[in-house]
Amino acid sequence: MQFKNIALIGKYQAMELIEQILHLAKHLKQHNFNVFIDSSTYSSMQEFSEFEHGELSHRLDKLDLVIIIGGDGTMLSVARTIANHDIPIIGINQGKLGFMTDISIEEMTNTIDDILLNQNYTVEARTLMSAKVIREHNLIFNSLALNDIVISRGAIGNMIEFDISIDQQFVLSQKSDGVIFSTPTGSTAYSLAAGGPILHPHAHAFSIVSICPQSLNNRPLVVNDDVSIEFTLIRENATQIHFDGQECFNLLFQDHVILTKHNKRLKILHPTQYNYYRTLRKKFDWSKRVS
Amino acid sequence: MQFKNIALIGKYQAMELIEQILHLAKHLKQHNFNVFIDSSTYSSMQEFSEFEHGELSHRLDKLDLVIIIGGDGTMLSVARTIANHDIPIIGINQGKLGFMTDISIEEMTNTIDDILLNQNYTVEARTLMSAKVIREHNLIFNSLALNDIVISRGAIGNMIEFDISIDQQFVLSQKSDGVIFSTPTGSTAYSLAAGGPILHPHAHAFSIVSICPQSLNNRPLVVNDDVSIEFTLIRENATQIHFDGQECFNLLFQDHVILTKHNKRLKILHPTQYNYYRTLRKKFDWSKRVS
Amino acid sequence: MQFKNIALIGKYQAMELIEQILHLAKHLKQHNFNVFIDSSTYSSMQEFSEFEHGELSHRLDKLDLVIIIGGDGTMLSVARTIANHDIPIIGINQGKLGFMTDISIEEMTNTIDDILLNQNYTVEARTLMSAKVIREHNLIFNSLALNDIVISRGAIGNMIEFDISIDQQFVLSQKSDGVIFSTPTGSTAYSLAAGGPILHPHAHAFSIVSICPQSLNNRPLVVNDDVSIEFTLIRENATQIHFDGQECFNLLFQDHVILTKHNKRLKILHPTQYNYYRTLRKKFDWSKRVS
Amino acid sequence: MQFKNIALIGKYQAMELIEQILHLAKHLKQHNFNVFIDSSTYSSMQEFSEFEHGELSHRLDKLDLVIIIGGDGTMLSVARTIANHDIPIIGINQGKLGFMTDISIEEMTNTIDDILLNQNYTVEARTLMSAKVIREHNLIFNSLALNDIVISRGAIGNMIEFDISIDQQFVLSQKSDGVIFSTPTGSTAYSLAAGGPILHPHAHAFSIVSICPQSLNNRPLVVNDDVSIEFTLIRENATQIHFDGQECFNLLFQDHVILTKHNKRLKILHPTQYNYYRTLRKKFDWSKRVS
Repeated sequence: MQFKNIALIGKYQAMELIEQILHLAKHLKQHNFNVFIDSSTYSSMQEFSEFEHGELSHRLDKLDLVIIIGGDGTMLSVARTIANHDIPIIGINQGKLGFMTDISIEEMTNTIDDILLNQNYTVEARTLMSAKVIREHNLIFNSLALNDIVISRGAIGNMIEFDISIDQQFVLSQKSDGVIFSTPTGSTAYSLAAGGPILHPHAHAFSIVSICPQSLNNRPLVVNDDVSIEFTLIRENATQIHFDGQECFNLLFQDHVILTKHNKRLKILHPTQYNYYRTLRKKFDWSKRVS
Repeated sequence: MQFKNIALIGKYQAMELIEQILHLAKHLKQHNFNVFIDSSTYSSMQEFSEFEHGELSHRLDKLDLVIIIGGDGTMLSVARTIANHDIPIIGINQGKLGFMTDISIEEMTNTIDDILLNQNYTVEARTLMSAKVIREHNLIFNSLALNDIVISRGAIGNMIEFDISIDQQFVLSQKSDGVIFSTPTGSTAYSLAAGGPILHPHAHAFSIVSICPQSLNNRPLVVNDDVSIEFTLIRENATQIHFDGQECFNLLFQDHVILTKHNKRLKILHPTQYNYYRTLRKKFDWSKRVS
Repeated sequence: MQFKNIALIGKYQAMELIEQILHLAKHLKQHNFNVFIDSSTYSSMQEFSEFEHGELSHRLDKLDLVIIIGGDGTMLSVARTIANHDIPIIGINQGKLGFMTDISIEEMTNTIDDILLNQNYTVEARTLMSAKVIREHNLIFNSLALNDIVISRGAIGNMIEFDISIDQQFVLSQKSDGVIFSTPTGSTAYSLAAGGPILHPHAHAFSIVSICPQSLNNRPLVVNDDVSIEFTLIRENATQIHFDGQECFNLLFQDHVILTKHNKRLKILHPTQYNYYRTLRKKFDWSKRVS
Repeated sequence: MQFKNIALIGKYQAMELIEQILHLAKHLKQHNFNVFIDSSTYSSMQEFSEFEHGELSHRLDKLDLVIIIGGDGTMLSVARTIANHDIPIIGINQGKLGFMTDISIEEMTNTIDDILLNQNYTVEARTLMSAKVIREHNLIFNSLALNDIVISRGAIGNMIEFDISIDQQFVLSQKSDGVIFSTPTGSTAYSLAAGGPILHPHAHAFSIVSICPQSLNNRPLVVNDDVSIEFTLIRENATQIHFDGQECFNLLFQDHVILTKHNKRLKILHPTQYNYYRTLRKKFDWSKRVS
């Protein structure tokens, strides 16, 4: 790929990153890339004045690459913004290895040079999930998630009750704290805490994981990601749908939610030595044993 | 498809099924199908004398269809026999619904007529898993499984210790009672008892599920079924590899096991009203709730 | 025991129970018991006019027995009202067997006669748990639970972060959706849905069960019920403490919660044939097997 | 307590420990303790010739204290030997913290001086479990365990089927790989790997934890440790009973196993700063978080 126009965006309000973002911006400019700074990052410091800036979401048709500096949370937020454009993304972490932000800030300059100048990288396409909320036959809300779409009860309400169908076939009726519909990317996040399996990013699959189900014989279910999943709220109760833990909408009794794979995938650029299993081992201390 | 030559095979030593198998054999003959009876079933009763008979495994190149009458255990056994031939299979259960033997013996004649005479059926292809045991660079054993390949410790030995790699990338080192490599078909069998997720038969995935792992941060892992998984025994200990719980081989220290998807899939014919999720609900009492 | 003064209380707003409660009230009056009807039940029907009535909570010092007709929810509510008085309780269920409401409404009259007239019963004492909320050295809230005390996050907030100490010894620091402190009675309720063990009612123990903990190596912990457990909220986040799912209080950053066994136990009268394990099997379908 | 006669025993065949055991033996002799060396340790080195030696099991009535140097495995083995005598024990670990061997070999001399000379220690009593195997009304085997008594299937057999009763009340019928009866001490060992809860050593409880149960609604059960548990094998299948993973006996169809608390407890001496929860955190990496 050719990367001429590059946007930089830092973790929201992370002042401690500004100097390094500035350093990266100048470095890229020296190598004749056009550098664009997202407003939220730009507004934090005068020194960015030599760079173009503005809302990332308004610039999407002119970008070849987005570099985010922060953590997986920043990545989730940007992913949903650029999901409908074919802009690849590079993720830099602040110090703690992320599942998607796999490049450390110390190695940032060298690694980005190797990617941009030497074209040494691999492209990984991550599946996104889309949900439409239908109320009395009308589409009243829709959004995207890179990690997960969670439907769960309000803080002081009772368990929620719902039906799930897949490809028009009734699957189950359940009473629980909620349910997590997870992509492979999200399978190492909230879904894992709720007892779900780890799905390798290349698995063409979604998982459906209940949160504290009342029924003891419930188990996580993994389905092909080309299915259409329908969720229906069958009892009145405070209920919300969450997208990557960042966007939220209140559901009402008898609302339907239709979940499908989004028609575009997020492209993440990794250095060639990137290894998913190494990240798993590091994040989950898999070398540690009790014995 | 055209089904002219049909083999019948009953559950091993299930005398109570003979009359119904005979009834089905005669019914098929009346409709001008060529009926072949597997030796194990044939030897149980004189009345089969009007039918051709022999070892199912010697007849495979002349068959268009195999009908098994028994349960999922019989299905597993036959599946491994016919896996390398493109012979579809129909599963009849003795009374208790099976995941693969979805037709009850009471409805057997009508359902089979509908499949064979009216061509009302759906074909479902189930993935099989293959394993090769390598000892000092030599292939010393290999076999197939429709459900699962389990590597586990001997009865009185200690936990086993092993490494797993996927596509030449090291994944983890583990101490446990064993590990289950499961197809979607096997995901509702032993794997589920060990805490694994349910994989829909259409998911192109395998699960890797540890049995009582010593490390508390181990979790089930789901991978695309086009990978090559390598298991290596890293400590001397009584260890066995099991195929569908029906075939077993002793492993030694430093043996490698290479697991991949088998290059053929098992074709199961279902009546058109067949519904996987209904089977799940029935087998796991998913309609029942504690409240 | 001598039971002269008996209160009756039905499930809140369960009109369908009124006739049977009336029947029981008249039956007890005929046998010369003094019958008292709780206001909530009394107000539902004119026919109760021949009986004394009022707030159960104002009558506690004059009662020898409370009979509740409803389900485990009604039992929880009454238990917290009478917990500081030594009044035993009998639980009648509306049709669905409860863990505490073990007498069916069909057998109600006979069973109660056997208990009251023939003195055929066993007394089971159930432990209650008490919690005090301390804010800046002041006790600002306290309450009781028969099932569980749950501290959990708000509906749209993030996971909560807290420390737990037991008998002044630091135990763990955790990030999760919340934590359940459960009595043996509550161990078959929400705690079980969150992955906790079943504690037999006679076990002198509490369980501490995390709700979707972020750390993979967390496990349920069972401690002797004579300990003092301290929970401290270590990060600002919408957080609530719930008592039996019926009473709720908002916690703030740095609040402490001290949990201990309540100094009185709830006495439940059972018919002599009562069997805890039978209830377990019935509620959890333990006779059912997948095979 | 007064400790005059002290036995030392090292991990079986751990030559690397001999020098430090010798050092400790001499140190104790200098302080006028009578030192006895267990044969297995004595035979490893000539330098012990100045000390009394012999089989630990033949010396039990003349000992005031046993010091083991090794790990939790050595502790289990010695515990079962001395269980019927009131001899307290001190556990030294070789380097890796144990649940019972809480004193590191580096701090051994100072800590033991503080315990023996300054009488600075706490005594912790750990419950043991006893099992009797009954065949056709005859007691044919019995033994003890400090950690757990496990009844499980043979390596290549099928799942085992059994009934469990508690205090003469039928609890459940199960098909599984086996079942673990665990003391609080054993709750952090195999039981934990099988999904059981952690029981604090002071909880007067046993846990009953199934190994890969076929039924999805099975859950760990915690009972008061004064119960009598009866296990009955209800189907013919290769089955074994294991005591602390160190002693094993073959069970036959219809054998009964009666499990109860042993009438003596094992006394472990700890330095005063010993803290169970710190051990938990260290062993299970509870300070580590994924975020």
